[in-house]
Amino acid sequence: MASAFFMPDDGRRFIIDALSAVGVPQGDAQTIADLMILTDRRGIDTHGIARLPVSINRLKSGAINPTPKVRILEEAPSTALVDGDNGMGQVVMSFAAKLAIEKAKTNGIGWVGTRMSNHAGAAALYAMMPLAHDMIGMYLAVAEINHMAPWGGFEALLGTNPIAVAIPTMDEPPIVHDIATTVASNGRISAAAESGTPLPEGWVIGKDGKPITDSKRAGEGTLLPMGDYKGYGLGLVFALMGGALNGTPVGRDAGTGNRAPPSNTGQAIMALDISKFGPPEQFKRYNDKVVREMRESKPLPGVERVRYPGEGGHAKYVASAKGGIALRPAVHTQLDKIAETLKIEKLTLKQ
Amino acid sequence: MASAFFMPDDGRRFIIDALSAVGVPQGDAQTIADLMILTDRRGIDTHGIARLPVSINRLKSGAINPTPKVRILEEAPSTALVDGDNGMGQVVMSFAAKLAIEKAKTNGIGWVGTRMSNHAGAAALYAMMPLAHDMIGMYLAVAEINHMAPWGGFEALLGTNPIAVAIPTMDEPPIVHDIATTVASNGRISAAAESGTPLPEGWVIGKDGKPITDSKRAGEGTLLPMGDYKGYGLGLVFALMGGALNGTPVGRDAGTGNRAPPSNTGQAIMALDISKFGPPEQFKRYNDKVVREMRESKPLPGVERVRYPGEGGHAKYVASAKGGIALRPAVHTQLDKIAETLKIEKLTLKQ
Repeated sequence: MASAFFMPDDGRRFIIDALSAVGVPQGDAQTIADLMILTDRRGIDTHGIARLPVSINRLKSGAINPTPKVRILEEAPSTALVDGDNGMGQVVMSFAAKLAIEKAKTNGIGWVGTRMSNHAGAAALYAMMPLAHDMIGMYLAVAEINHMAPWGGFEALLGTNPIAVAIPTMDEPPIVHDIATTVASNGRISAAAESGTPLPEGWVIGKDGKPITDSKRAGEGTLLPMGDYKGYGLGLVFALMGGALNGTPVGRDAGTGNRAPPSNTGQAIMALDISKFGPPEQFKRYNDKVVREMRESKPLPGVERVRYPGEGGHAKYVASAKGGIALRPAVHTQLDKIAETLKIEKLTLKQ
Repeated sequence: MASAFFMPDDGRRFIIDALSAVGVPQGDAQTIADLMILTDRRGIDTHGIARLPVSINRLKSGAINPTPKVRILEEAPSTALVDGDNGMGQVVMSFAAKLAIEKAKTNGIGWVGTRMSNHAGAAALYAMMPLAHDMIGMYLAVAEINHMAPWGGFEALLGTNPIAVAIPTMDEPPIVHDIATTVASNGRISAAAESGTPLPEGWVIGKDGKPITDSKRAGEGTLLPMGDYKGYGLGLVFALMGGALNGTPVGRDAGTGNRAPPSNTGQAIMALDISKFGPPEQFKRYNDKVVREMRESKPLPGVERVRYPGEGGHAKYVASAKGGIALRPAVHTQLDKIAETLKIEKLTLKQ
């Protein structure tokens, strides 16, 4: 079945309508819509509008607070701990990122952790927020549900805990690296199950230590860490820096099923002001040089061209302005159901 | 051939004697010796006393400055850029770590970058320095020589650029994760070549995209990134954050051979004060809980026990107090040569 497409502005309108219908104030609804659409435009179709149905359900049931009072719990000149009051992750993290950027402007670096937050969508978005201020951004999040076993084990005790880093450039698209610490993100596995595509070996293993390739059976196994023990260690330290430090659950407290709300998700964002190390233009031009070297370097046999992290997402972003955003059939069905239940206009598709 | 062993204090004395003989001041020689021996005691035998011969050669030839004037070039309340004056990496990085810790004490976080530094030994050492101050430590370094190709390419344009993160605990050994962004570090490949051991597939590939398993031929290929494109991206962003931001070479400027001195190595250290997020004891006890859960979780068939990053290094550290440190035959020969050339006493071996 061919995918339908929608235009960014239409998607944005639909998201705002849906969120408003479940009690999210206009300003917050716009923030969330902008971030979801930006995610889709950069081609991360598992973390954009595809997550709206889950969010709407949780907002309706009270599992997520539609009108949070986000506030600072602890503060030092360059750090802060933010309580998200169980609001949407996009709202909490936008607050946290703004605060980290302000602190970096004054002191060179800012680090803000969150508690009582929720899933905030793609990690890249928050790492990218400092870019416009000539800053490097780094974002860590603790996934709500445990899917990864420690290396050598089979009990799921860690999430897919992602890291994203964004680095400013001058004329080239910014360097944006956004990865789960598991080989595959949970979103990609759900998408495979949805379309009935088998999983490559190395994504999921069963209790017997053997690969599970049937995507419908992924839930019986645990996700493998990227780079074996290296990814396990990164997932663990990121969980402690982005979660436990902020007082959010890690390990058995986080659980493997859908925990009773609130999810109490933990995140952390760092902004590092490049102007405190020399002229920003110099660093940004140097980064242009480095990514061009990568891009123009000789590819291995069978590889068309070497890429650098962020260039693909940027190209998709540019293309989506005219070509729109692809909508997977299963997501399309869910969005239509939302429209019906909430009595809002259906998402307008691209003709 | 069975390994010889030496006791930590004897190793320390030998390193101080050797460094003093090539003009390193007493205080700096002690700093370097303490860090090299700590590296060996934690079982990272490729980055401790094994690197002394290279360092001595470079100090003698003037490729490294034995009497550097390490100074702050740029400074903001929570950040600094340090010029290492081409001194030994251990001296430059000890200065940088102390500064980052001071800044974190006042402001919650400190980030210090270095330029005109040199190889500083194991990354874990610097990440661990903030631990005693109830801080999380993170360290990035740009390896001097390019060994890794961007994912999909075969030109070596990046180093093995490591990251190390250390997180304080209460009663358990601290969590210390120290990894190269390549599957194998260059030190492990040299050690394999030294002992004639073949390389596992997945460490090195040739220009034809096929694995190189003959350790003597490793130089013909490039090191593979851990976790495929994920490790490539991490190696790239760490190089920019730990190197280019500080004005040190990345990409083609870094080169694939032994560049003409100075090596102008770049590093970065971050210290994050956990007391700015809540009572330190609470976080440290929670980390104890998490690592115990990992350790006590069910292992896969054929795995004896699940481990967490840092526990193995700590156990080796404790054992080395009585059992000493193993000395590889090739390193032993080199150290004896140093003793002869510098007219200092040979390293005393454990009886």
